Amino acid sequence: MKKSLLALALVGAFAGVAHAQSAVQIYGTVDAGLIKRTDQSLAIGKRANNTLGFRGTEELGSGLKALFQLEIRYEPDSGTIEQGAGGVQRPLFQGQSRVGLQGSFGMIRIGRGLTAFQETSTQFEPFRGVPSPSGFQTDLMIAGYTSDPLGLVGNSTNRFSNAVFYNSPEVNGFQVNTTIGTREGSQGSAAIIGTGTAANPQYRVGSDASANPYSVTATYKSGPGAIMLATERNAVETRLLSIAAYVMATPELKLMAAHTRQDQDHTRLINAETKAWLVGANYTIGANRFLAGYGQKSPDGLSKTKQVSLGLEHSLSKRTYLYFDISNKKGPTTPPSVNHYAIGVNHAF
Amino acid sequence: MKKSLLALALVGAFAGVAHAQSAVQIYGTVDAGLIKRTDQSLAIGKRANNTLGFRGTEELGSGLKALFQLEIRYEPDSGTIEQGAGGVQRPLFQGQSRVGLQGSFGMIRIGRGLTAFQETSTQFEPFRGVPSPSGFQTDLMIAGYTSDPLGLVGNSTNRFSNAVFYNSPEVNGFQVNTTIGTREGSQGSAAIIGTGTAANPQYRVGSDASANPYSVTATYKSGPGAIMLATERNAVETRLLSIAAYVMATPELKLMAAHTRQDQDHTRLINAETKAWLVGANYTIGANRFLAGYGQKSPDGLSKTKQVSLGLEHSLSKRTYLYFDISNKKGPTTPPSVNHYAIGVNHAF
Amino acid sequence: MKKSLLALALVGAFAGVAHAQSAVQIYGTVDAGLIKRTDQSLAIGKRANNTLGFRGTEELGSGLKALFQLEIRYEPDSGTIEQGAGGVQRPLFQGQSRVGLQGSFGMIRIGRGLTAFQETSTQFEPFRGVPSPSGFQTDLMIAGYTSDPLGLVGNSTNRFSNAVFYNSPEVNGFQVNTTIGTREGSQGSAAIIGTGTAANPQYRVGSDASANPYSVTATYKSGPGAIMLATERNAVETRLLSIAAYVMATPELKLMAAHTRQDQDHTRLINAETKAWLVGANYTIGANRFLAGYGQKSPDGLSKTKQVSLGLEHSLSKRTYLYFDISNKKGPTTPPSVNHYAIGVNHAF
Repeated sequence: MKKSLLALALVGAFAGVAHAQSAVQIYGTVDAGLIKRTDQSLAIGKRANNTLGFRGTEELGSGLKALFQLEIRYEPDSGTIEQGAGGVQRPLFQGQSRVGLQGSFGMIRIGRGLTAFQETSTQFEPFRGVPSPSGFQTDLMIAGYTSDPLGLVGNSTNRFSNAVFYNSPEVNGFQVNTTIGTREGSQGSAAIIGTGTAANPQYRVGSDASANPYSVTATYKSGPGAIMLATERNAVETRLLSIAAYVMATPELKLMAAHTRQDQDHTRLINAETKAWLVGANYTIGANRFLAGYGQKSPDGLSKTKQVSLGLEHSLSKRTYLYFDISNKKGPTTPPSVNHYAIGVNHAF
Repeated sequence: MKKSLLALALVGAFAGVAHAQSAVQIYGTVDAGLIKRTDQSLAIGKRANNTLGFRGTEELGSGLKALFQLEIRYEPDSGTIEQGAGGVQRPLFQGQSRVGLQGSFGMIRIGRGLTAFQETSTQFEPFRGVPSPSGFQTDLMIAGYTSDPLGLVGNSTNRFSNAVFYNSPEVNGFQVNTTIGTREGSQGSAAIIGTGTAANPQYRVGSDASANPYSVTATYKSGPGAIMLATERNAVETRLLSIAAYVMATPELKLMAAHTRQDQDHTRLINAETKAWLVGANYTIGANRFLAGYGQKSPDGLSKTKQVSLGLEHSLSKRTYLYFDISNKKGPTTPPSVNHYAIGVNHAF
Repeated sequence: MKKSLLALALVGAFAGVAHAQSAVQIYGTVDAGLIKRTDQSLAIGKRANNTLGFRGTEELGSGLKALFQLEIRYEPDSGTIEQGAGGVQRPLFQGQSRVGLQGSFGMIRIGRGLTAFQETSTQFEPFRGVPSPSGFQTDLMIAGYTSDPLGLVGNSTNRFSNAVFYNSPEVNGFQVNTTIGTREGSQGSAAIIGTGTAANPQYRVGSDASANPYSVTATYKSGPGAIMLATERNAVETRLLSIAAYVMATPELKLMAAHTRQDQDHTRLINAETKAWLVGANYTIGANRFLAGYGQKSPDGLSKTKQVSLGLEHSLSKRTYLYFDISNKKGPTTPPSVNHYAIGVNHAF
């Protein structure tokens, strides 16, 4: 900031070079494979999210750090930015865009990212939160809930934009994570009729939140086990409650279970409550990890969804593994029973 | 270029690895904070531009260098590419995309970037050119002028695309910076009625420039002070004249002033001239820097805009600071008086 | 994957830092210059593609490697992602997005990239495949063929999305490259009337492929010469056959020739066949390389296209060169004869 004006004009574009490279780390994932779903032709697709990220930290002294993280999401089969329903392109840094400070008080960040619940809960799901239909994260773990109902059409539904994120330090195995959003609405969100009418929807296009969205998780870890309590409220005042636990029954075997309830009584007059539960296991032996899970989602007054999934991850190295998934999902959809097969490679860099 | 064909086919995708990493520097800024404006709810937003850039230089011998710079701009609160009015996404490399040569003759670059005036003038504005409403750069410093009236709708208005940029070396404190654009029009620009009619606008959708846009600044530095003379003409032949100066009254105190005139007589029959001026000060003591400014913009025959701003930047390190801004702007708008408060963090990497 | 839950919650965003930086290489090209075409005003543009890429490899042991490559394409004159016809923005990683394994068996990759033919054939064209109108790659080398007729409107037409890419090792100078696509259709592709009617087109909007697209090249290299045989079939069953050869007549002089035939009889009742040929030469002396080519394209029953091009590349270093092109193209277009002049700089990083 104290550079001379005229020197700046010539070298200005390159100011700050000296410290730049050391501060930024590039990381990411490429995950692609062959996918076959009932009633669809063989396709190239993904199992996990594909990311290309940039992050860094700076020591500020006295144990304080500044940190940032920017994470691109993309589709490896077509080279586009990650796409939502209808081929809508999501934000460039769909993964996250946050800046903050970390110290003995914990970590506080500002920007866009997974909510406390959506981030913490992946540890209690046997497929570790992958968006593949074989995983349980995007439907059963969350009981069909969306964290971002007023977001841009096609956006992912497990993040808050315009939010403050706080992670406490771990104290005696106990930790709290909190996310609080502003009431800002996203330009481009769809109307939500809710308890209104098509002509006078409860939330119009581009509405602001009617209350501050928040998400809180409390986790407690003791020995080989952990438990999570979570609550979240989104911008249209839908509420979520979740309880989950895992235990390392042996060093190779992780068992887990979760129960989640979504309450939409602010926008629905009937059938406001959805419950879901799942159980899962991971068994690791040598280079192979077996994944298994079963769960159900029960919307009030509507048909149940039932899902069973098996997976195998075969490590070629610490950063690369092959995967083989098979799963079946039954529910009030067409067709009513869908099989999903996937074989592919996941490479972290 | 001389790789064997068949070796290339196998390793082709990875050719050029050896020199790659050393040549590219990653840099950027993340700036996010809480913003409160009169008549708007509390929001997450930015004060400075948010960038993620890639740049490098290559020594060509005899003091000649090749150089490039590509700079992404983004919104940290939502993770999107930088957005203009109406949520329109700007180019990926909104910051700049340029390639060129540097030597004893100065620096010549081709591509897209800030015009000579828009880049140089930030040094004479107490908030160093940040786009925050607390800053003076985007309105009063430029007297409401736009450098890119035929750009894509929603684009920023302080850059030339399709341009050649020349920066002279500094000789005895004197330097000249010049930007010249081609007459190419951008696909997607809006019509400008100007002296025409709605049915027959002076510049139709996607029009080419009616004259080559250019921007020239001459700066002279002597001891603790500097002066700038600038002129610019955009694609619809609006002209700008600006004179500005600063002086380091003490090593801690920088005083500055600027006067700018915009002349739109090519596209307006009346009220073609807008004048603006501002005075500002920066006072640095220890880790704190105080910013203050006042200015007015006077469009011919229309109401004045008056702005007063105060800011504080508290450095946590060389690369990270907290900021606190308060400002008031009065003018022919609704509401006629707007307060703007911001508190946030700026981290460079 | 075995991080403790609660430690993860605090440092999670930064997991995996240790191996990240070493694994990723950044590379790219910036190419910009002045371009003058008959009947168009002087413009800033490009000669070669502009890229910003990220790639890496991981040793898996036993000679096996995991590898990935993500390649952004952009327009340096305007800072946007690469644009197709009508200013449509192409995918972020338009260059390629692939992940795969390499070993003694060759290299297998999944994702999106140039087809085997489109990639291999650039070695038999005097301008090495640049998209400039001075080059022969995008029209005459391929006889007007498109590899991706069902891709997004405005996409480039020389790539397969949703594909598997296999490159054999070179054995006694012989090598085979193969690309096979799935039958997935792209959301957003235009209808192809083909042998149908406007109301009932042969391929509707967003159609899937009617057969698996594939591309195969076989190359044989012996001493100073090489020959290529290629065949490709796209998603609407247009077929391509190509034969090409080059010889290094002297160490400075490369001579080349190619003949390609496109057969569209699946979608056309008449005029289904297009033939094209070209001859070219590269002559390198010191820092200068001269490029020359001539070719014709003859659609069945329609007017010929004839192109002659001359180029000069003057190296400033291994990574930077200046270029000067002049070419003329005559054909069934308006105007019927187009001259193209370009002068610019190409910088690799």
